[in-house]
Parts: sequence; C-alpha cells; structure tokens
Amino acid sequence: MASNSMENTTVDSVSGKALKALLSPCAACAEADLVRWLVPPGTPEALADGMRYCMAGGKRLRPAVAMLAAQAVGGSAENELVRRAAVAVEMVHVYSLVHDDLPAMDDDELRRGRPTAHVRFGEAMAILIGDALLTRAFGVPAECDSPLVGRLTSELSRAAGAEGMVAGQVADMNLCDLPKGLEGLRYIHLHKTAAMIRGAARMGAVAAGADETALQAVSDFAEHLGLAFQLFDDLLDVTGTAGQLGKTPGKDAETGKQTHLAAVGIEEAKRLGEEMTLTACRALEPLGPAGETLKELAILLTRRTH
Amino acid sequence: MASNSMENTTVDSVSGKALKALLSPCAACAEADLVRWLVPPGTPEALADGMRYCMAGGKRLRPAVAMLAAQAVGGSAENELVRRAAVAVEMVHVYSLVHDDLPAMDDDELRRGRPTAHVRFGEAMAILIGDALLTRAFGVPAECDSPLVGRLTSELSRAAGAEGMVAGQVADMNLCDLPKGLEGLRYIHLHKTAAMIRGAARMGAVAAGADETALQAVSDFAEHLGLAFQLFDDLLDVTGTAGQLGKTPGKDAETGKQTHLAAVGIEEAKRLGEEMTLTACRALEPLGPAGETLKELAILLTRRTH
Repeated sequence: MASNSMENTTVDSVSGKALKALLSPCAACAEADLVRWLVPPGTPEALADGMRYCMAGGKRLRPAVAMLAAQAVGGSAENELVRRAAVAVEMVHVYSLVHDDLPAMDDDELRRGRPTAHVRFGEAMAILIGDALLTRAFGVPAECDSPLVGRLTSELSRAAGAEGMVAGQVADMNLCDLPKGLEGLRYIHLHKTAAMIRGAARMGAVAAGADETALQAVSDFAEHLGLAFQLFDDLLDVTGTAGQLGKTPGKDAETGKQTHLAAVGIEEAKRLGEEMTLTACRALEPLGPAGETLKELAILLTRRTH
Repeated sequence: MASNSMENTTVDSVSGKALKALLSPCAACAEADLVRWLVPPGTPEALADGMRYCMAGGKRLRPAVAMLAAQAVGGSAENELVRRAAVAVEMVHVYSLVHDDLPAMDDDELRRGRPTAHVRFGEAMAILIGDALLTRAFGVPAECDSPLVGRLTSELSRAAGAEGMVAGQVADMNLCDLPKGLEGLRYIHLHKTAAMIRGAARMGAVAAGADETALQAVSDFAEHLGLAFQLFDDLLDVTGTAGQLGKTPGKDAETGKQTHLAAVGIEEAKRLGEEMTLTACRALEPLGPAGETLKELAILLTRRTH
C-alpha cells in the first residue's frame, strides 16, 4: 500500500503540474474577469465581501472547459462573451457549493481549505451569498450586447436548474426516487456535476459561434468528462486526506451518500471512469487537431488526486 | 375602535373587489402560463411538486404590473415575451419568499395560509426549490426566440441580485450597516420590494418594445408603488390578523425588524405611503390615458388589508 501510494504521488505530481500548466492561463483570465464582473455596483460591502470570499480559490475547471471549448470550435478564448460565459459558469458552481455546504444540506465546515460560508458569515448570509452569485451569473453574460445572450441564458438555466444540477442535488440528498446501484449513481453524476460541465462547454462554444456539429462534439465530450470527473471525485472522498481534498474526507460515507458507489465497487468505478474519459475523447474526433487540448485536459483530470 | 375597524372593512371590501377585478385577468393568464412553463421537462417529480406547491396562490401582483406596464407603453399583455417576463418575475418573487421563510432567515411557518416550504418538504428541499425557481425564472423568457431576451435577463438579474432584492434581504436581516430611521427603512423597502416591482414593470415594458420615455415612466411609477406597497405591508404586520395576512402577524416586531418603522411612527408611515402612491401616479403622466389602469392599481393597493 505504501509503495503504491508513493508511485501514485510521483505520477500525480507530474500530471498535477501538467494539469496546472494547462488550466493556469484560463484560471488567470477568470481571476481578472471576476475582479471586474463579480460584484455589481450598488452591492452592500458585507455581501460583496462574502461573494469574493466564496469565489476565491478553486481550480477554475469550468471556466477552462468553457474557454477551451471555444477554442476547440475555432473561436477565441479571449472573446468577451466567451469569458463572460466562463465566469458565469464558475459563479453558478460556487453558489451550488455554498448552498450544498449548508447545515440543512451536507453540513460541511471546510471548503477549499477554509471555513465554509455559513461557518464564516452565518447561515442567513450564506444563503443570500449563494442567491446573489446565482443571480449575478445570469447578469454577467447579459451585460454583453450580443444576439447570443438569449441562447446562453437558456443553456445556463437548463444546466443549472430543476432538470440539471438542482435535480442532481435533490437526488444526491435522497429527496427523490432513484434506481439502486450504477443507474442511480449515473443519474446523480449526470445531473449534479456533468450537467454544469457540459453547460460550460456548450456556453463557451455557443459564445464562440460554433456550428451544430462542433457544439454537439464539445457537449458530448464535456458530459462524459463530467461523469468521469465526479466518479473520481467520489473515489477520492474514500481514499483521500483532508490536506489533499481541502474538505472533510469520508463525509459522503458518513451521510450514506456512498451507497451507490459501494454498490458499484471501487475497482469497477475506476474502470468506468477511465472508460468514460475515453468516450469523452472520442467525441472530439469531428473537431480534428482543434480538439487536442480538451483531450489532454480529460486525460490529466483522470490522474489527479485533488 | 370597533366602528373604525368596521368602516375599514367596508371600504376595504369595495376596494378589495375592485382590486381583484383589476388583477384577475392578469392572474388567470399567469396561472395558465405557469402550468405550461414552470416545470421544465426532466424535473424529478418530487421537485416539481415542491415548485408547484410554492407557486400556488398569491395575488400575482408582479405579473400584473409587468402585463399592465406592457399595455401602458402601448404593447399587448398577450404578447408571449411579456407573459414570459411576467411569470419569470413571479417565480423570482416566490423563490425569495421560500428562502426568506427558512429557519436561518425569518423562520416562518405560515405563508399564503399554508405551511411554508421547509415545514412541508424539509429544509434541504426548500433551499433547492428556491434555487430551482430562481434558475427557471431566467430560463422562461430565454426560451423565446427574441432579440430582447438579453435585456430582459439583465433587468431580472439587476432587480433580483446583489444590487437589488438580495441587498434588501441582507439589510432586512441586519447583515450590513444601515442608517437609522427613515433612511434605513427606505433602503430596505427600495431594495427588498421596490426593486422587483420596478423590475416587473421594466421587463413588461422592455418585452413590449417600449421607448426610453415610456420605460422610464413605468419604471419610476413601479419604484414608488413598491415603496408604498412595502410600507403598507409593514403597517399591516402591526395591525393585521393571521387570517387577513395568511402569515403570522407581529413577526417583524418579534424579530426586531420593526425598529425602522417604529422610528418613523405609524401615522407618519401612512402619510408617507400615500405620498409615494401620488408620486407613483404622477410618474405616469407622460403616458397619457394609457397610464390610467396602472394608476388605478396603485390607488386600490393603498386601500388593501391583505
């Protein structure tokens, strides 16, 4: 076990550096854009502080997916609408974490290595910070004078809403009926995580003016990437440490949320995750060489530890 | 006191009927549209049930403001984009009530005469129902293929977000610094209530293709209407009964939220409310006879008991 873990660390640190190198230009862009666009003028300072606190840190995976998808369909990641779409997706992602961490939900005290919003600001403010982030996410692309804003709004609402991410959270909290085992696990992953990663890719591609074939390619890619990503994330929750995760490990098992993963088994889950990564990469074939960076992202993500 | 209350009842019942007659065609339209547009395909049944439960009932004042504003600027309340904007605003309003009623916020158990969402479905589901309603609100107008969707999205985000309604909730919960007395009360009312009523009018007018002068007129009208409306609502909380309100009366005083109103005094608050109603009506002058229905709405609302 010790040598295995050592071997993983070596492989992981190489992949980790490569992943960081791949994500960092997008992350830098997202950081700068968040400074500009996150807090609308007229926001009370206490609320603005809370919004900034919650948005700090993170890999910025979703903005990267949006920006790299824009490039993959022949557009530019520098395009303002692409960048607005990219940070909008991140804001929706972070709002979902803030609400997910609430005492009535997952009741988590640690997120990205720091106290969660409700621990830091109180529960009422955490609810309102989440609400503000979600609302602002729709406003950021809409401030751009582009005929594509309507489609972006629709994509974001679908990915994040009752038929997307919120459905996944309802399922994850055992608040609706779900099949047992693999099918149930797939439903949760597809909605809770893959819907927004798919949404990120679609929004980036739509903002870059993708045609239908290219949009479908990045959309299918991102859906499978999202499925693989959440599966490996669940596995990390079982095998990781708090230092690696930046959150409390074993939390899922405690709350009974790992029943689906347990039913599948750890080894089978790993195999499934790798299979989904391959499916994701194959979806990019219609894009030719333009799809290479997204492929690289998918492969590096399967090797991550945090 | 008894005869005074009797006299009020008589005046109120006449105004109440007139108000109902004015609102009911818009309300009927909103009910039908909500059946069609509220729940997106693919929503888990338990979540859909929760969304429908929370959306049931209410005066549908905000959809009426949106639709009547569309008419006031020379458009049609039957226009699909106007109707989509109208129900979007109502969905945002209801999400805000669901989150506002949560134990960590106002901790209310009664809303529109029925158990609040968290009492009925549990706290986690109530948080998620609110999130789903807010997200869907942006999706409903965006499903319309119109170049105006971008502007509507932007208007909705501003009215509902960190610079609008959420700011008002932060202030109302004493989570940010605020001046004492009338100025503080005005900040809360302006953001917590007037921002969304103004947003309703603006969205209706924008969806109907209003020019700048007409948009400004309905916008100013609705802002003052919203201020007056919330002031009378606070007064009702002091003077009303649970049967009239459909919620627990005296709640605000209990939670110390009435300090602002107390500083102003009940009689002065009434005078201010009437003054704001007149200011609202004067704002409609540029619209000529087309503004008459909105004026009537403002006057009838000042006479309501619930």
